[in-house]
Amino acid sequence: MISKELKKKIDFIIELEKLKTINRENYTLDKNRKENSAEHSWHIAIMALLFEDEFQSTKIDFFKIVKMLLIHDIVEIDAGDTCLYNENLNKNKSYSETTAAQRIFGLLPKEKKDEFINLWNEFENRKTNEAIIAASIDNLQPLINHVVTAKDNYNPLNIKKSKVFEKKEFIKNASENLWQIAKQFIDIGVKKGLYINDTTYEKNTSDNFEQM
Amino acid sequence: MISKELKKKIDFIIELEKLKTINRENYTLDKNRKENSAEHSWHIAIMALLFEDEFQSTKIDFFKIVKMLLIHDIVEIDAGDTCLYNENLNKNKSYSETTAAQRIFGLLPKEKKDEFINLWNEFENRKTNEAIIAASIDNLQPLINHVVTAKDNYNPLNIKKSKVFEKKEFIKNASENLWQIAKQFIDIGVKKGLYINDTTYEKNTSDNFEQM
Repeated sequence: MISKELKKKIDFIIELEKLKTINRENYTLDKNRKENSAEHSWHIAIMALLFEDEFQSTKIDFFKIVKMLLIHDIVEIDAGDTCLYNENLNKNKSYSETTAAQRIFGLLPKEKKDEFINLWNEFENRKTNEAIIAASIDNLQPLINHVVTAKDNYNPLNIKKSKVFEKKEFIKNASENLWQIAKQFIDIGVKKGLYINDTTYEKNTSDNFEQM
Repeated sequence: MISKELKKKIDFIIELEKLKTINRENYTLDKNRKENSAEHSWHIAIMALLFEDEFQSTKIDFFKIVKMLLIHDIVEIDAGDTCLYNENLNKNKSYSETTAAQRIFGLLPKEKKDEFINLWNEFENRKTNEAIIAASIDNLQPLINHVVTAKDNYNPLNIKKSKVFEKKEFIKNASENLWQIAKQFIDIGVKKGLYINDTTYEKNTSDNFEQM
């Protein structure tokens, strides 16, 4: 006999298949195949394991970071993936993702639903150390992936370097090392023609990352 | 300045792109697209989070289970995915995967390389509670995925129900609940024509799962 609780978990596991069909803007090494949000989530979860020793603090719960990264895009099953640089699509993003979180995590037994919704909210709000680190890794991966998989001079949205900096420089609040990597891949992207080289812009951000 | 250690991690992150191009035998909900090992790894890592409360023991390190599941298929970048039911291909599997582990995890700084190789070996050897639970989840997911994504009567390898039982019944050593789910999805698979209904075979296995 399979309990009601287990049956709900199976329904959720089956629902997850759909995230493998949600494509992002970036590509994979497969010719002309776009990266989907499931394989992106796998990639960043491993990146978290790699960067664990960059943060020498017992206060940082890396299992929580990995959990956030594994589940953060599940809402896209309903809400779809909206490119960071598409401002119009992003205006309505918050509402539809919240609705999606309620429906999809709502498939789970109450305790697990609450756990996942709390993790997802914490990630979205970027207030805790864990959420800032997770969001930084989530934002670093596409910079690397894009350089590795995109064809030269591929920039259909005419993305400017200054815009990439604006969206990504919060990474320095998590880690100066991760930000160095991000900047390096933005520069390689500019050289490859993936971003318009409009400026050497780099504004200072206040450090809102808690002392560790 | 990006340190040598960080540079190695970036090389590994770039290498991981290749796992998104390693296809498994099963399909996705995308018409005619096979599931790749990266998205499979994501799926089972979340399943581990869902089943965490099935194992009410402080002795079980679920973060380790998630780590194992995230990295267990990385060796397929060199060794390829070999279907569980293809006995010929599986004969040479162990050697080539060990070679692959040395090369791919060898891209990492020594400490991280050792950590990942140890995790991978522990998973492959299926001796610890964590490895048995991880392997069970890794073996349960394709049973569910196959039922959800395969067309009716798709069985190109003429897989028999008795063979599926033989390969999967170790799951009961991890959890009777997970085994109940596995059996249910094998039965649905038989009804869908995905496995040949040759027997009602179910042999007893000794319980080699440590008492919890």
